[in-house]
Amino acid sequence: MADTKPKKLVFTRQEMFEINKKTLNKRGVQLEAIAEICYQQQSKYSDDVSRDVCMESVEKILSLRDVFHHIQLAAEIDRLAEEKMFQGPIQDIIYEDLGMFGIDETMGLDVAGLYGTIGQTNFGDIDVNKHGIVKRLNDAGKEDGICHTFLDDIVGAIAAAASTRVAQILNEDLAHEDTGVKRFSIFDIK
Amino acid sequence: MADTKPKKLVFTRQEMFEINKKTLNKRGVQLEAIAEICYQQQSKYSDDVSRDVCMESVEKILSLRDVFHHIQLAAEIDRLAEEKMFQGPIQDIIYEDLGMFGIDETMGLDVAGLYGTIGQTNFGDIDVNKHGIVKRLNDAGKEDGICHTFLDDIVGAIAAAASTRVAQILNEDLAHEDTGVKRFSIFDIK
Amino acid sequence: MADTKPKKLVFTRQEMFEINKKTLNKRGVQLEAIAEICYQQQSKYSDDVSRDVCMESVEKILSLRDVFHHIQLAAEIDRLAEEKMFQGPIQDIIYEDLGMFGIDETMGLDVAGLYGTIGQTNFGDIDVNKHGIVKRLNDAGKEDGICHTFLDDIVGAIAAAASTRVAQILNEDLAHEDTGVKRFSIFDIK
Amino acid sequence: MADTKPKKLVFTRQEMFEINKKTLNKRGVQLEAIAEICYQQQSKYSDDVSRDVCMESVEKILSLRDVFHHIQLAAEIDRLAEEKMFQGPIQDIIYEDLGMFGIDETMGLDVAGLYGTIGQTNFGDIDVNKHGIVKRLNDAGKEDGICHTFLDDIVGAIAAAASTRVAQILNEDLAHEDTGVKRFSIFDIK
Repeated sequence: MADTKPKKLVFTRQEMFEINKKTLNKRGVQLEAIAEICYQQQSKYSDDVSRDVCMESVEKILSLRDVFHHIQLAAEIDRLAEEKMFQGPIQDIIYEDLGMFGIDETMGLDVAGLYGTIGQTNFGDIDVNKHGIVKRLNDAGKEDGICHTFLDDIVGAIAAAASTRVAQILNEDLAHEDTGVKRFSIFDIK
Repeated sequence: MADTKPKKLVFTRQEMFEINKKTLNKRGVQLEAIAEICYQQQSKYSDDVSRDVCMESVEKILSLRDVFHHIQLAAEIDRLAEEKMFQGPIQDIIYEDLGMFGIDETMGLDVAGLYGTIGQTNFGDIDVNKHGIVKRLNDAGKEDGICHTFLDDIVGAIAAAASTRVAQILNEDLAHEDTGVKRFSIFDIK
Repeated sequence: MADTKPKKLVFTRQEMFEINKKTLNKRGVQLEAIAEICYQQQSKYSDDVSRDVCMESVEKILSLRDVFHHIQLAAEIDRLAEEKMFQGPIQDIIYEDLGMFGIDETMGLDVAGLYGTIGQTNFGDIDVNKHGIVKRLNDAGKEDGICHTFLDDIVGAIAAAASTRVAQILNEDLAHEDTGVKRFSIFDIK
Repeated sequence: MADTKPKKLVFTRQEMFEINKKTLNKRGVQLEAIAEICYQQQSKYSDDVSRDVCMESVEKILSLRDVFHHIQLAAEIDRLAEEKMFQGPIQDIIYEDLGMFGIDETMGLDVAGLYGTIGQTNFGDIDVNKHGIVKRLNDAGKEDGICHTFLDDIVGAIAAAASTRVAQILNEDLAHEDTGVKRFSIFDIK
């Protein structure tokens, strides 16, 4: 009977943002902590970075359809690994976060690439050197019963993408100072 | 003396769009031909696709900084190969468009990925099956003195990215019909 | 008590090959069907392709650690979706194989890229135009109770990687005919 | 008259290795310096890493066709930028190594991915934090008349790929200790 209702597969960007925010919060991640990594990365290069533009970038990225699919799948894989629902060798490989397992990084690189290649090398840095919330998730994932194998990479990738978006905005501002031309509306920073 | 003027490295999105359009025209590519591939791909899946939304997508993509760098480098590599300026084996490999040479596809995949993975598989289809302007560039590149080794891939990748953007817009419209909620301004389709 | 035994996380290449073969067979995929796509793709370009070299390539790829992780995770995600174990919107998105869902393609592109970019565009062609076993898996996945959302992409990606490996071998043979030099053992085709 | 000789487009792996080595030496890069980054990265994780296995990995990677194309193109783009041969804005963007220019990183990610995703995140770390020879190339590139915009990324990517290959070998050894089974010849580490 329940199955006669048509399934909802496509969500609006506001719906996706809200579901993503709820999922991240439930898995222990506040959006401010993601924006903080972005702020730390970009304020090294420029004095004009505000926490507001970092937070706005994180929010915009959380409304993208690809990012919605990544966060929802990543959070569920981690939960299913915590509940030992995978059969075969992949259960322990995910749960123990084997160093040579790289599908979490594959997903992270995909998210980070939505704002270009610079996002992907930023993600590599965050992944290897584990800044802020990424380190806290990674450490917590070593505790008994907790698995953050996929979540730490997705969170790092969102920070890397936000960081690249902020750099794009700063470059656009810089270019406009040079020309004095006002902005063309269809070319807003995506 | 000429070098005392500071070099201009960063351009506004409108400037980048205009330089890209000029470069593509000079190498024999009209924007309408790129929009046409996008239209042919998407009108298979939906009756709601217009040529206008395809053209708008192509224009928006041509204003992105990463795409600006790709088009400008691709057009110059092809020109330098036509003028036999490369030293060593790479001159003939590029000029003859060796089948196992894949850096043109690497650049195409990077452009296509700016709107997500679906763009990358769309690009693979265009690259292997050579639709419309991509086929015409590829064929012309076999003539004496003409090299389109990089340009055909970049053009195919822009079409693939535009195609994915149009699909995103159609999905957003569909999702809004479901909810009846009006759009949230910060979540415009990028 | 069971947990006191150290977990096995790292497998030999032969073990990985055998587990992968068993998993693919269980999900309805014979290795010959993957080799067949590879053969169909490469015999278009050369008369020197044998089914043996295609099969050898498929087997070698099935022994790679990254491919092991991809196949094992892909098969388990499909099974868990069949058993309705995912919570939230991602259950229906995976089970119904939503067109805009692209993480299966992200994983496929990663596998296909192990033998270079040409593998990735080959994969795009297979993904869009659905050759052989990929089409059969995709069609079967529409039946009630069956989900092949991830498996068809992984299988297509293995075929694409094998296809690229075969092309590399043919090119190496061609290059040796030119030089008459015998092969240097450390440079075997990987 | 010269053009009647058929062009040589396909090289053996030994030829490609030797041409690559010569090109790197000419641009100031010794293979030992690339192997050193690999050694520094992997000796953090294991005591069983030798400089020999790092060097063997670098040599093997330098014989791959995709890597041959990348090194040959990268070295030529840098040389052509030094000689101011590019027309339009891309000349200064490459020569000055603009921070938002990412095609050098796109090429690096492609090389690094030949041994899997872990190679790509290793590359991100090397790219952002600039270890050893990568830092020296990057610094030298700021001097008048020298451009290493593409070379430093390709060199970092080769180090990252070698590093991943070494990790794969260590894992294979580890897996064999567990099983006591002897190696299956067709499954040598690629």
